[in-house]
Amino acid sequence: MNAFAFTVEQRDGAARAGTLRLPHGTVRTPAFMPVGTHGTVRGLHPDEVRAAGADIILGNTYHLHLRPGEDVIAAMGGLQRFSGWNGPMLSDSGGFQVFSLETLRTISEEGVAFQSHVDGSYRTITPERSMEIQWALGTDIAMQFDHVVPGQAEHALAREGMERSLRWLARGAERHAALARDSDQPRQTLWPIIQGGTHTDLRAASLRGILDAGDWTGIAIGGLSVGEPKPVMRRVLEELEPSLPGAAPRYLMGVGFPADLIEGIARGVDLFDCVAATRNGRHGTAWTSGGRVNVRAAVHRLEDAPLDAECDCETCRTVSRAYLRHLFVVSEILGLRLVSLHNIRFLIRLAEQARVHILAGTFGGWSEDWLRRHHQRGAS
Amino acid sequence: MNAFAFTVEQRDGAARAGTLRLPHGTVRTPAFMPVGTHGTVRGLHPDEVRAAGADIILGNTYHLHLRPGEDVIAAMGGLQRFSGWNGPMLSDSGGFQVFSLETLRTISEEGVAFQSHVDGSYRTITPERSMEIQWALGTDIAMQFDHVVPGQAEHALAREGMERSLRWLARGAERHAALARDSDQPRQTLWPIIQGGTHTDLRAASLRGILDAGDWTGIAIGGLSVGEPKPVMRRVLEELEPSLPGAAPRYLMGVGFPADLIEGIARGVDLFDCVAATRNGRHGTAWTSGGRVNVRAAVHRLEDAPLDAECDCETCRTVSRAYLRHLFVVSEILGLRLVSLHNIRFLIRLAEQARVHILAGTFGGWSEDWLRRHHQRGAS
Repeated sequence: MNAFAFTVEQRDGAARAGTLRLPHGTVRTPAFMPVGTHGTVRGLHPDEVRAAGADIILGNTYHLHLRPGEDVIAAMGGLQRFSGWNGPMLSDSGGFQVFSLETLRTISEEGVAFQSHVDGSYRTITPERSMEIQWALGTDIAMQFDHVVPGQAEHALAREGMERSLRWLARGAERHAALARDSDQPRQTLWPIIQGGTHTDLRAASLRGILDAGDWTGIAIGGLSVGEPKPVMRRVLEELEPSLPGAAPRYLMGVGFPADLIEGIARGVDLFDCVAATRNGRHGTAWTSGGRVNVRAAVHRLEDAPLDAECDCETCRTVSRAYLRHLFVVSEILGLRLVSLHNIRFLIRLAEQARVHILAGTFGGWSEDWLRRHHQRGAS
Repeated sequence: MNAFAFTVEQRDGAARAGTLRLPHGTVRTPAFMPVGTHGTVRGLHPDEVRAAGADIILGNTYHLHLRPGEDVIAAMGGLQRFSGWNGPMLSDSGGFQVFSLETLRTISEEGVAFQSHVDGSYRTITPERSMEIQWALGTDIAMQFDHVVPGQAEHALAREGMERSLRWLARGAERHAALARDSDQPRQTLWPIIQGGTHTDLRAASLRGILDAGDWTGIAIGGLSVGEPKPVMRRVLEELEPSLPGAAPRYLMGVGFPADLIEGIARGVDLFDCVAATRNGRHGTAWTSGGRVNVRAAVHRLEDAPLDAECDCETCRTVSRAYLRHLFVVSEILGLRLVSLHNIRFLIRLAEQARVHILAGTFGGWSEDWLRRHHQRGAS
C-alpha cells in the first residue's frame, strides 16, 4: 500500500478530479493550498483555515529554518503539532527564497551560501541540507532544492538552472532516501520540480531528466507566473501536459489568482499555492463573484450587503461591507483577517466547483463561462 | 416588567452574585466586560469573545462618533448588528476620551469643544449630544457625559468636576427621556457616574446628588484606577458601599487587572471593564494562574506547555508557549490574537469563579487565598 497514493477519479478533457492520500490526511483535487509562511496562514487560526475547506497548507522552509529553526519544530513534534494544523502539509525547498536574496547570496555547484535577512548570519543551503530541514519539519511532501533563474531568462541561463536542478535532484533524492530508510514508517515523500523557463526544449528535457531519475509520487512545475505573459504560461502547460505521467499529481508552484486556477485545471494541474489570497486580504482587496472589490473604498460606507452574496464563508455570512470598510479605516486587524479568510475560501471554493464539474463531465462549458464572465468584469 | 431588571441572587459579605436583564440578553454578575473600542474587541471575532464567556462588551462613543460616525451605525441597524456582536452592549459617554485630549479641547458649562485626533475637524460634545450619539449606537446601557478631572485632583477641582457632572446628568437624563419617549419599546437605559476623586465628602455628595435626581437602573463609579494608590481606591469603594442602592448593579469604570477585580467584587462591585487584557495581549504579556508571563521571553523557546495549564481557553487548549513565542518573534498577528483571547478569558473566568463562590457562601476565604497567592507571585 502506497502511503502517498494518488487516484484520478475522473477526467474531463485534460482536467482531472483526484484524491491524494498523505500520512496526515487526504487531499481532494484540484485543490488550492493556502500558504503558511511562518507556520501560520497569515492572520488566520488553523481552525479557520480548515473551516474554509483547506485540505493541505504550505510551510516555507527558508523562513522556518531561520525562525524558530527546524530543531525547535522537531523538538515540538513537527510542524503540524507545533502549529496546531492537524492535516497534510507541503514544504517548499527554500530555493525560491534564497535565490531571491539578490545581493546576499553566492551560488555554486555545492549549493547557495547566503546571509540571513533576520540576523545577518551566514548560512548555506545545499540539496542535502534542504532535505534534512524538511525532514525535521515533518511535512508530508518535501520539494527538491532547485536552481531558480529569473522569469523569462534567456536560453543559456535557463538551461544552466534546469541542468543544475537535475543534478541537485539526484543529490537531494539520495539524502532523502537515507533519511527515510531510518524511519519506522513512510512519513514524507519528495517531489521534483520541472524547470526550463519559457523554453519548450528545456522544459521537455527537464521532464525527461526527472522521469529518468526515478518514480515520483508527484511532480511540480516551477518557474512560472514570475512575470511572463499569461499566454506563455498557458503554452508551457499545454506543451508539458501530454508527457506528464498520468498517475502522479501535478503541482503548479506559486500560482493562484482565480483565473490562473481555472486555466491551470483546464491544462491538467491538480495543486496550486499562492500568497496573493492573504496578501490581498491584508490590503483590503477581495476577489468576489462580482469582480475585485477594494474594501476601503468610500462607496462601501453605508453598504449593508456582504462582500460576496454568493460566498458561504464566515465573513460573508456574518458582516457587511460597511463594517469591513470601517475595520480597515480604523486599522483594526479583524478586518484583514476577515478579508483574508474570504479570499482563501474564494479560491478553495473555486477548486471545489471545478472538481464538481469535472466529476459531472461539465468542466469545459462551466470553465469557459466562468472565464468569460471573469474577463468581462475586467478582473485578474 | 422592567426591561433593565437586576436581581441579586446571593450576598456574601459585600460581594454579590446577580443577574442583569437587558434588551439584547442577560448578564451574570460579577462580570468583566471586554472593551470593543471601534466596535470590535481588538484582534478578536465576536464569536471568540462569546466563546470566552463574555455576556456584555463595551463600545467607545468618542471613537465610534469619529469613525464610522453614529449615522453609519444607525443606518446599519445599530452597533450590535453592525459589529456582529449579538448581545448586550454598554457605551461610555465619550467624556473620558475628550477630557484626555489635553491641548485640543475647551471645556465650558455647555460641554466640551475639541479637535478630532483623526481629521482635525472641530466638534462639540454636550451632555445632550452624548445621549443622541449613544441612542444612535443603540447600546443597551448609555453612560452619562461627565466632567472628568485628573486622578488625585485637589478638593476644589474635584468638587468643580463633581458638581458639573451632576448638572450634566440632569441635562443628559432629560434628553435621554425625550429620545426614549419616541421609542416603541424600552431599548436603552442611562446610568449616572459617581465622581469626587479621592475625597470622601465629595464622593458622598456625588452619590446623594445622583440618588436625589432619580431612580436609576444602575450606577457607575468613575475616576478611579487613574494613578491613585490601590489602598485609596479600596477606601473610596468601602466608604461608598453602604450608601449605594442595593437593588442597582454597580459598575467600576476602567478597572480590571486581576487583583482589582477580586478587590472590587469584595467591596460590592458587579461590573468591570478594562483595556489591559487586550493591550497586554498585543504586547505578549499574559496573566496566568502561575503569574505574569512574557510570551516573547527566550525561556519559552522549547516549552511545550500551554500558557496556563489551569486555563480552558482556546489558546491554552491548542498551542504551546513555544509556538506563541515563535508567533511574536516573527510578528505574526495570530500571536496577539491568541494571547488577547487568553487574557480576556482569564478575567471572565475569574469573575465566574467569584460568582460560584459567592453563591456557595465561600467567597471570603477563596478571595483571600487567591489574593495571597497572587501577591506571593509578585503579580499585579
